[in-house]
Order: sequence, then C-alpha cells, then structure tokens
Amino acid sequence: MMQYMTDIHLSSSQKVTADDAKALLVEAIAENLDIEHACPISRSTYRIADLGCSVGPNTYTAMETIIEAVVQKYQSKGHLELPDFQVFFNDHVSNDFNTLFVNLPREKQHLAAGVPGSFYTRLFPKASLNFVYSAYALQWLSMAPPEIGDMNSPSCNKGRISHLNAPDEVGQAYSAQYAKDMESFLSARAQELAPGGLMAILIPSSKDGNLPAQTSPGPYIQPLESSLLDMGNEGLICKDKINSFNLPIYSPSLEELQTVISDNGCFDIVRLEAQSREYGFLSTTEECRAGLGSILGSYFGSENTDVLFERYSKKIAGRSRNVPDDNSCTVGLFILLRRINH
Amino acid sequence: MMQYMTDIHLSSSQKVTADDAKALLVEAIAENLDIEHACPISRSTYRIADLGCSVGPNTYTAMETIIEAVVQKYQSKGHLELPDFQVFFNDHVSNDFNTLFVNLPREKQHLAAGVPGSFYTRLFPKASLNFVYSAYALQWLSMAPPEIGDMNSPSCNKGRISHLNAPDEVGQAYSAQYAKDMESFLSARAQELAPGGLMAILIPSSKDGNLPAQTSPGPYIQPLESSLLDMGNEGLICKDKINSFNLPIYSPSLEELQTVISDNGCFDIVRLEAQSREYGFLSTTEECRAGLGSILGSYFGSENTDVLFERYSKKIAGRSRNVPDDNSCTVGLFILLRRINH
Repeated sequence: MMQYMTDIHLSSSQKVTADDAKALLVEAIAENLDIEHACPISRSTYRIADLGCSVGPNTYTAMETIIEAVVQKYQSKGHLELPDFQVFFNDHVSNDFNTLFVNLPREKQHLAAGVPGSFYTRLFPKASLNFVYSAYALQWLSMAPPEIGDMNSPSCNKGRISHLNAPDEVGQAYSAQYAKDMESFLSARAQELAPGGLMAILIPSSKDGNLPAQTSPGPYIQPLESSLLDMGNEGLICKDKINSFNLPIYSPSLEELQTVISDNGCFDIVRLEAQSREYGFLSTTEECRAGLGSILGSYFGSENTDVLFERYSKKIAGRSRNVPDDNSCTVGLFILLRRINH
Repeated sequence: MMQYMTDIHLSSSQKVTADDAKALLVEAIAENLDIEHACPISRSTYRIADLGCSVGPNTYTAMETIIEAVVQKYQSKGHLELPDFQVFFNDHVSNDFNTLFVNLPREKQHLAAGVPGSFYTRLFPKASLNFVYSAYALQWLSMAPPEIGDMNSPSCNKGRISHLNAPDEVGQAYSAQYAKDMESFLSARAQELAPGGLMAILIPSSKDGNLPAQTSPGPYIQPLESSLLDMGNEGLICKDKINSFNLPIYSPSLEELQTVISDNGCFDIVRLEAQSREYGFLSTTEECRAGLGSILGSYFGSENTDVLFERYSKKIAGRSRNVPDDNSCTVGLFILLRRINH
C-alpha cells in the first residue's frame, strides 16, 4: 500500500509530517523490535539517536514516541525492568544546542545528550546504538556537487540554484553526490548500530519517473532563485558568485534509494511507505530563512541575505500557501531499516 | 606525602591546576586502571565524563590526557585493538555548549557528546561510564543552605555572602549542605560507573583544623562582599535582598570528605593528594565575573551586577594578584576513587 504524505523541507511545517509518521513509527517498532537477543549488558541501556534533530520541539516528540513504543514492546514481552533510555540529539556543530537543551521537556523518560557533527561521518562508538531516527534531514547533502559550481566546467549550473529545469548533467551530478553521501551515511551507521538495531528515516523523495530537472526541492526554489538573479542583474551581487552557488539539497527517487541501500549491504529494508498529499506548501519568508538563511548568509554575506529575503517576501506576496506547486514533485517516504547480523 | 597546590576557583586560572594535576592523573591511571575484567561488549567502548566541564579549553586537555593514559595502559597490556573513546562533556543546562562544541579540537581521539544538567542528579545510564573526571566544580553546592538565607531564621547570615567570619551555625549549615549534595553526587555516580570504574576529582579543600569561619572560598570574597554592602548602604540594592543572598560555594575539610565517601560506601579511596601553594590569586574582575556573574545576575539583576563589578574593580585596583590571602585557607586536593564491585 503506497500512501502519500506532504513533503515540507522547512522546519515550521515539519510537525505535520512528524505527527503523520507517529503511527507508522509506533507500529513499526511493535512489529520489528527484537529485544530478546540483546546481551544482558547492552540490554540495560537503550540508546536512540536523532540525526539532524534541529532545535526542537519536533525532536522531543519523536523521541518520546519511540521510547513509548519500545516500553510497550518490553512490557508486552513481560520484561518488568525497563532499560535506561539515553537519547543523543545530533546536528551540525553550528546548530543551536543551547536552545535545544534549555527547552528539553522537564518530564521525560530519557537521559539526554547532544552530539555535534555531520551525520556523514562517524559520531558514535561501534555497535552502541539501538535505534537511529532521522526526519527530513537527509535531503541535505554534505555539499553541492563541486563540478556544477565550477565556472570552468561545462556542467556549471549557471543561472540556477538547484537541479530544477537544469540540463541532465546537473541532475546526474546531484544524483552522484547523493549516492556518495548516502553511502557514507549508511556505512557510518552500520558501524554504530548494534546488530538487529533499527533505523527509521523520513525523507522527501522524487516521484517515480520524474527526472531531477522536473523535480523542485521545494516551492521556495523559484521565488528564491528569481530574487537572486534579479540582484545579479542589478549588480548587487556579482553574477559569477550567483552562477557558482547551488543548494546542497536533493530528493532521491525510490529506485536510487533502494540501490544505495542494496549496494551498501548492511541493512534490510523492513518497511517502506510513501505518504499522501503530493505538493509542498509555499514557504513563508520566515520558514525559508529558518531553513536556508545560514547557508545563504555564509555564501553571500548577511547584508545581501537580508536584501534577498526582502525580495523573496515581495515575490510571494499574495500567493496562496496552499496551492499545489506542480514542480514540487516529491513525496514523503518512511523507511525502516534493520542492521543485518553478519 | 602531602604536597600543596594552588586553589583557584575561577576559570581563567584553572589551567595551572589542571596542568599540575596531569602527571598525577597519568600516574593514577597507569597504576589503577583495570582493563582485564571488562566484558567484551563494554570493552569495545571506553566512556569518560567531565562533570562541570565549562566551555573549554581546559576540559579538552584533561580529556586527551585521560585518553592517552588509557591508551598507554591498553598498549602496555598488549591490546592491539583500542576501544572507541566517547567523551561526555557535562555542565549546567545554562552552560554555553555551543561554544564548547565549536571549539572542540579537530584532531581528537574521541567521539564527543554534551550532557546538560546538574551533576547532583542522574545524568547517565546505569553502569555506562568507565571514567569520571571533575575539576574544581564540586565546590559548587546545588544551592546555598536555605536556612541561612531565611530572614526569619536565627541562622540568617546577614551582612555576609559566605561562611567567612560567620557564626558557627552558618558554617555548620554549609557543611550539612555539602554532605547532602556530595552524597547525591556519589550515589548518582555509583549507579553510573561500571564496576571497577575510576573517578578522579580535583577540589579545593579547607586546611586541617580551620573552621569554615576561618576559610574563605577565595580572595574575591572580601572585595565582592564589601562592594555589595556598600550598594546596600547607598540604597542601590535592598539590604534584605543582600542579607538573604549567600554563595553556594564550600570547600570541605579532608575529614568531611572522607566521612561522606565512607558513609556512601560505594567507592574505595585509591589515592588522595594535597598539593603545594596554599594561597589563591586575587581574581581579576573578568575572572570573578566569569565565575560568579551568572548567579549574581539572576539574583540581583543585570544592572545591579554591572554596578557591582565596577565597584569590585575599584576595590581591587592596585592590589597585587600574587600576594597570599591569609583568609583563603584552602588547598587543592586530588582524589582518585574506584567503584567497588559488590
């Protein structure tokens, strides 16, 4: 059964998808968690990581959902003594961990820790995690494909900031960067997850049969790109600087995703669901800035970024948030993987 | 052999003591670390916590010292495969973890995590830590003894902000609060340390035979207290507010410390050393503010605290940093504890 779910990349609307995913998560844990074969020592602690957690509150809710489902499973198997739950909140070192920590719920069933760093690298000790969760973070590549930002390369993606409406080689470069990053991700997690451990991933995925050129990372792309190009035409930002900029965001097709998981070889796909509603909401200026302000600011400078979002705001003025964006051909995927016991 | 070491409570000068303690730490690990009796699973990860780590860089140095000493021990025992090292940096939730994370050394031998919360509570899963370290943090009580801040109590510590020059009952209240807090600390760590795990603690301790009334938490006390009282006399801060304020700082005697460890019953004292130089440096205004600004600001408000530190600065102007403070009768203690295998 394939259902469709909203894909929204930017943070304020993520709660919808996270809530929609809750039932799936609870059911998946109930069906697939194996607590019988853990050794006594690892059984006394249950370690969960949220990779790309941002600053809350969605991560708090997701972690409590997972813990409640695990507790249910322990109780259903007659285990009277519960493990200690330790939750690792991970995001880039530039994430605001202070805010994340200050807002941690007072009443919680877990011991909390923050882990700074890219999830494309090793973050945790060998075989130390029981459950990995990542919601709408893996569309962020480690970087945009370098060749499409190289002004001397024939694949340079001039006049665009994503693969939407770009030549095939741009889409291919994004796809190759995605495969490389995802292999780094799976390989790091394969080392960190204990045998039998589960990994639940929510990501935007491009619709079957659509090429990257037909797939927008989100409905914010066109007003943002066009605002940037206006600034280039008016001489506010050097055109070369705009031509060499590309957003490090990519939504794989189902086939690409299955290929990279299969090539990696360390995980079984236990469950894979696509969810309803196939369009994205148009992002407000605040949402767009929350998601992209940091990367734009570090590339174009904070003053240019202020002007850029003023332009963005004018471009979207009067547009309805709820009108489907035909170019935003992505669907939300829920994938549950199990670390294979070798 | 009892040696004496500088006791400095405030952060910028802590490096001296941390460096002085390095040799002790390395030697203590070489002599006392037991890596033979860990089970295979717990042997694959070596977990270290720095409790009250502040924002660095002292904590980075201390953690690398411990890791190097553990690696030496593994190698000396012929272990070719080293464990993954995971370091938990702990401090209050108000600590600046963002700064701590941004400045983590790029070349490091460990996987880092931050843990927000009071070390007087449970912070880690059961039996999950191999080594606990805490440097010049345990002089901070969970709170000042409530009765000495109660204007209606006969033990109210009017006109003072510490036990220095206070009646006996004030010193006794501090001592009782210390014993209570330290029992909470030891009891939490007893649950968190794996059997055989080690705990190295550096703390200021009052000199044998001196009462709390004769012991200053630090040479900053008198200029700070006198600046506050001046502000009270001038009507800038309500006198009752000053009378009910007490710093939550206490340095136990060796005997008090031994009693609370023995009463707790979960740890052997493996090593106990007092170190040379028996006076504290006078804290600069910046050092004093770094250590106490937050607690003073939240009690007296930020404007009053600005004025207070202007006054402090004037009080200490012209005084030499290096003149021994006769009231600062504390010595630095290095204590190594081992979790008893029950």
